[in-house]
Amino acid sequence: MQNFPQLQRLFLQYLEQNQFQSEPQNLYAPVNYIMELGGKRARPILLLLGYQLFEDQIDRALPAAYAVELFHNFSLVHDDIMDEAPLRRGKPAVHERFGTNTGILSGDVMLIYVYEYLLKLDRPDLLPEIFKTFNHTAIGVCEGQQYDMDFEERRDVTIPEYLQMIELKTAILLAAALKIGGMIGGANEAEATHLYEFGRNIGLAFQVQDDLLDAFGDPEKFGKKVGGDIAQNKKTLLFLQAQQAANEAQRAELEEFFFGPAVEEQMKIARVTELFLELGVKESAATLQQQYQAKAFEHLAAIAVGEERKRPLIELAELLLGRES
Amino acid sequence: MQNFPQLQRLFLQYLEQNQFQSEPQNLYAPVNYIMELGGKRARPILLLLGYQLFEDQIDRALPAAYAVELFHNFSLVHDDIMDEAPLRRGKPAVHERFGTNTGILSGDVMLIYVYEYLLKLDRPDLLPEIFKTFNHTAIGVCEGQQYDMDFEERRDVTIPEYLQMIELKTAILLAAALKIGGMIGGANEAEATHLYEFGRNIGLAFQVQDDLLDAFGDPEKFGKKVGGDIAQNKKTLLFLQAQQAANEAQRAELEEFFFGPAVEEQMKIARVTELFLELGVKESAATLQQQYQAKAFEHLAAIAVGEERKRPLIELAELLLGRES
Repeated sequence: MQNFPQLQRLFLQYLEQNQFQSEPQNLYAPVNYIMELGGKRARPILLLLGYQLFEDQIDRALPAAYAVELFHNFSLVHDDIMDEAPLRRGKPAVHERFGTNTGILSGDVMLIYVYEYLLKLDRPDLLPEIFKTFNHTAIGVCEGQQYDMDFEERRDVTIPEYLQMIELKTAILLAAALKIGGMIGGANEAEATHLYEFGRNIGLAFQVQDDLLDAFGDPEKFGKKVGGDIAQNKKTLLFLQAQQAANEAQRAELEEFFFGPAVEEQMKIARVTELFLELGVKESAATLQQQYQAKAFEHLAAIAVGEERKRPLIELAELLLGRES
Repeated sequence: MQNFPQLQRLFLQYLEQNQFQSEPQNLYAPVNYIMELGGKRARPILLLLGYQLFEDQIDRALPAAYAVELFHNFSLVHDDIMDEAPLRRGKPAVHERFGTNTGILSGDVMLIYVYEYLLKLDRPDLLPEIFKTFNHTAIGVCEGQQYDMDFEERRDVTIPEYLQMIELKTAILLAAALKIGGMIGGANEAEATHLYEFGRNIGLAFQVQDDLLDAFGDPEKFGKKVGGDIAQNKKTLLFLQAQQAANEAQRAELEEFFFGPAVEEQMKIARVTELFLELGVKESAATLQQQYQAKAFEHLAAIAVGEERKRPLIELAELLLGRES
C-alpha cells in the first residue's frame, strides 16, 4: 500500500513519461505546458486511492488516473478561454501564451486522448461501464460550465440551482475519479456508489468552502485576494443565501452592489462582507459544508475495507478541506 | 439491401429521433442547430455503406453513423471559430448565432457524445478496436487543422506536407467511417484496410478536386465564388504546384500576389489563374486526382463481395467526385 506522497510521486513520474512528443509541435506544446503547470493532482490521486482500497498493483490504474487529469486540464484550457482568464496557477493561461485558436484545438486533442488513455486499461470487460461513467461525468461538467455562464446573465438564480451547478462543474469529476478507481480495483456496485457519493460530497464541501474562504479566508493562507468574488459580482452561495435571508432594505442594498453601477471596490467588499455577517450566511454556509463533509464520511464508512486502507483517502479529503489533523 | 436515397432517409430519421432535448438549452440548442443544417451526410452514409457490404441489418450501424456525423459537425463548429468563418452552409455559423463561448462548449459536449453513441453499439468485443480506429482518426483531424493553421504563417509549405494536411484534415475521416462500418458488419482485417484505403483515396481525390473547382469550376455549379482560394491567398495544391513549376520571374510574380500587399481582387484572380494555366497545374492536379481515384477503386475491387453490394458505394463516390454516370 502506498501513502499519499508516494502516489503523488508515482503519478508525476507517469506524467513525465507520457509527455506529448508528436508533431505538430504547435498543437502539443500547449498540452505539455498545461499538464506541467502543477496543482495538487487531486483527481488522479483520488482515482489511485479509490483503486487502492481494493488492490495494490497501482500501475494498472495509472492510465485512467492520467486520463482524469487530462480531462480536468482540457476543461481548464477551454474554461479559461470562455472566462477570459489571463492566468492559471500564476502563469499565463494557455490561450494567453499560445493564442485562442491553439487553445481550442489543443483542448480538443486532449479530450480525445482522455479516451486513448482510458483504453489502455487492460480490462475490456470493464471498458463499457467505465466509459459510461466517464461520459456522463464529462457531459455533466460541460453542462455545469454552461449553467455557470448562464447564471452570470441571471438575477434570479436559486440556491438549489447553484448547488446543482457546482455539483456538475466540480463535484462529479472527483466522484467519478474515485468510482472509476474503485471499479478498476474490483469494487462491487454498492462500493462503487459509496465511493462516488464520498467524492461528490467532498467536492460539494470543497466548493462551499471555496466560497467561504473567498469572503472570510485568512489573506495570508488563501493565496487569492479575499473578496474577489464580491468584487466580480459572483453569485456565490453566500450571496444567494444573503439574498434569501435579507429584508427588503438589505436586499435592495445587496442587489445595488451586485447589479447596479460599479462603486469603489474596497468599500463594496467591506460592506457586502458586513451584510453577509449580519445575515448569518457565514454560519449557514459553514453548516452546509459540515453536512456535506459528514455525508461524505458516512459513505466512506459504509465501504467494508480496513481502516488502514482508508487512511490516505481521509488524509487527502482533510487536506482538500483544510482540516489538517 | 438499401440504396443510397433509402439510407439517407433512414439516417435523417435517426437524426430526428436523436435530437438533444436536455437542459441547459443554451448548450444543446447549438448542437441541434448545426446537426440540422443539412449537408450531404457523406460520412455517416459511407459508414452505413461500409457496413452494408457485409450485413443488411442497418439499424445496428446507425449509432456509429450518427457518431461520425456528430464528430464531423463538432469539428465544423470549432474550425469555424478558429477560421472566423461567419457562414456555414449559407447560414450563420454556430459562434455567430450563439456566441463563441457557447460554440466552444457545445462543440466539446458533441465530442463527448460521439463516444456515447459509439458505446451504443451492442458489440463489446468490437469496442476497443473501433475506439482505437476512431481516436487515431480524431487525433489526426486535429493535427490536420493545426497544420492548416500553421501553413497560413509559412511560405515554404511543400506539396507532400500539403497532401499530408488534407489527408489528416479530410480524407481519414471518410476512411475511418468506411472502416468502422465494415468492422461492425464483420469485415476481416484485410477488408477493413481496403475500405479504409478506398475512403482515404476518395477523400484525397475529393480535396484535390475542391482545389481545382475553386480555380476552374463552373461558377453556376460550384456554389462558391470561383477564385475564392486565390483571393484569400490560400496555399492550395495548385499554388504549391505552380510555385514549384515556375521560373524565377513567374515565381516572383506569384509570390508577390500571395505574400505582397493586397491588389485589386478580380485582376489578381484573373492573372493567377492564367499563371496556373501557363504552368500546367490544372493538368497536373487533375492527373493526381485521377490517380487517387483509380487507387480508391482498386481497393474497392479487392474486396471480395458481389458487385451489387458495391454499387451504392460507387454511386456515392461518383457523386462526391462529380462524375455522375
